[in-house]
Amino acid sequence: MRNSTRSQVDPFIVMDVMQAAAAAEAAGRHIIHMEVGQPGTGAPKGAVEALAGAMQRDALGYTVALGLPALRARVARLYGEWYDVDLDPQRVVITPGSSGGFLLAFTALFDSGDRVGIGAPGYPSYRQILRALGMVPVDLQTAPENRLQPVAADLAGQALRGLMVASPANPSGTMLDRAAMRGLIEACHGAGASFISDEIYHGIEYDKKAVSALEITDQAYVINSFSKYFSMTGWRVGWMVVPDDQVRVVERIAQNMFICASHASQVAALAAMDCTEELEANMAVYRANRALMLEGLPRAGFDRIAPPDGAFYVYADVSAITDDSRALAAEILEKAGVAVTPGLDFDPVRGATTLRFSYARATADIEEGLARLKAFMDAR
Amino acid sequence: MRNSTRSQVDPFIVMDVMQAAAAAEAAGRHIIHMEVGQPGTGAPKGAVEALAGAMQRDALGYTVALGLPALRARVARLYGEWYDVDLDPQRVVITPGSSGGFLLAFTALFDSGDRVGIGAPGYPSYRQILRALGMVPVDLQTAPENRLQPVAADLAGQALRGLMVASPANPSGTMLDRAAMRGLIEACHGAGASFISDEIYHGIEYDKKAVSALEITDQAYVINSFSKYFSMTGWRVGWMVVPDDQVRVVERIAQNMFICASHASQVAALAAMDCTEELEANMAVYRANRALMLEGLPRAGFDRIAPPDGAFYVYADVSAITDDSRALAAEILEKAGVAVTPGLDFDPVRGATTLRFSYARATADIEEGLARLKAFMDAR
Repeated sequence: MRNSTRSQVDPFIVMDVMQAAAAAEAAGRHIIHMEVGQPGTGAPKGAVEALAGAMQRDALGYTVALGLPALRARVARLYGEWYDVDLDPQRVVITPGSSGGFLLAFTALFDSGDRVGIGAPGYPSYRQILRALGMVPVDLQTAPENRLQPVAADLAGQALRGLMVASPANPSGTMLDRAAMRGLIEACHGAGASFISDEIYHGIEYDKKAVSALEITDQAYVINSFSKYFSMTGWRVGWMVVPDDQVRVVERIAQNMFICASHASQVAALAAMDCTEELEANMAVYRANRALMLEGLPRAGFDRIAPPDGAFYVYADVSAITDDSRALAAEILEKAGVAVTPGLDFDPVRGATTLRFSYARATADIEEGLARLKAFMDAR
Repeated sequence: MRNSTRSQVDPFIVMDVMQAAAAAEAAGRHIIHMEVGQPGTGAPKGAVEALAGAMQRDALGYTVALGLPALRARVARLYGEWYDVDLDPQRVVITPGSSGGFLLAFTALFDSGDRVGIGAPGYPSYRQILRALGMVPVDLQTAPENRLQPVAADLAGQALRGLMVASPANPSGTMLDRAAMRGLIEACHGAGASFISDEIYHGIEYDKKAVSALEITDQAYVINSFSKYFSMTGWRVGWMVVPDDQVRVVERIAQNMFICASHASQVAALAAMDCTEELEANMAVYRANRALMLEGLPRAGFDRIAPPDGAFYVYADVSAITDDSRALAAEILEKAGVAVTPGLDFDPVRGATTLRFSYARATADIEEGLARLKAFMDAR
């Protein structure tokens, strides 16, 4: 069968690493997973219990497209708790993960051929979803002195219809402070470009709290998820906050594209939002892991790193070691038994000289991984 | 904010009915729901139990994009059980509901501006999703003598890149027999158009078994779901079978657009496939309801109907009663307390003179609804 042009999205290079790691494990080797972008923990216990109860009581049929009213109200309340923002629950759209939020936002805002700016390095699916929708992703090459985040000047001459930012970012873990976020929002509004803020790593932050675009403006799409801080990756439930006048547009697209997010997942997510103790225990693990990474990676020889403000990644410049991050990742897997992600998925241009290390798993794994990385680099 | 052209999808007209019904219920009235397209039953007990167990044992993180291998294998086995088709599990893609299947199929096969044929009347979201992706839905006006299904001659001069069929269809419940299905497939292959078969109502069939496109060709996309026969609407899990050479293309799109279908829903779906006794008990209810409808609707005056081959709908020609199905549906709701769907969502041209009656709910509701419809029509 003949495929469309838009279907030709790039493969994930990390998949090669994951397949090689799975093959090594099948052959009996023990592998430390620093390539995965998800918590090792499951949904909070309170979430599991709430769903177990609801499954006995309720048929869990379709919800309305915008999501369970109680969940929308609870998400709105979170903006008061986290940012002191008074948010109308009517502006909250429950989505099938942040992935569903990207599909809805891009569809609501952009047409075929429209140019949408994304930071490089950045989450690879922004680029691929835009292409799959017939739009044109425009990589904005970020600078280390801007902490690998785009700045207003990057928009000049790009004729963008929209800009997508992420703070904390994947793979770098860097954040936009209030002034930087405001600068980008104002540049977008001045240029007639829609501003979309991916805030999926909010809650997983270390020295300072992450700034939400909603602290600065109502004229933005804000995308978030229960996958990271709330530790519910596989449940595929997230949310998006949109301006008042966008709710009906997004609702109609969601009715047709998704009908609704999983009812079961929405029930679990609502309960997860009150499992503060368990979620903060997860955070203590990330905090300990981050400290180990910031000490252990330089000691192993990966010394060109910036301390991440949030998320659970360290993005390392390995240009002094290699100009082929894919080969280096393969070598690390083979010789050290540690799976890491080559930067090429995040930055097709400069990712040949970067690696992403994830520290989302148990602390004992981080310790063992760092020891293996040091032994590997010492012997190299 | 400025919206895209593609975001301007039509509202569902049935939403007006549902909101009016909800308002009537909030005011204390008792409403019979013949507008809803979902079973009144929940997931089978075995599915709920399997998930309750898995939630205790497993973190339920991301699955691979194509879905749990055990579920893909079990779906492949279903094709042996239902159709005597030997299907390679590698060709099975687990999706976030049939909605996810539509997004994947259309993206894999069609580009901006491509023309895709759909039968009118038909499921409204085909049209809206195609538009939201920047494609061009082409309504093929079906004829009563073809049981409201498209025929090969409808493709002539349409320059279609693809054809989407549904058998059993929504809203008519009619099926394509083997010869009709073969005729459409051959016409598509001859015209260079991709053939997509929506088989979501398979398993809910009355006199004859529904024919799968996979009984005739491997060169088709076949979309199905756990929502209808398996009674799991709100769980948002379905599947798609694609030709061998399409698996990698679809996998890459799915990785980016969805990451995966809900892990919890996949666990429940796998168990649901072996809950035959409970599912056949649901079927006995549909069968009884259908018999009541085929007797009761004509007695009430809705006599221009065809017995549905499958699904749980009766599509009635009400042109002798009204040329404004929306007003008639509103009147039926107000005076009879029965919610029904005006045909306009399914057929923008001829739907002004049709109504869809769903019989997916409990038999007692069907009996009460038919009695109310008769009293209403007698008094009209």
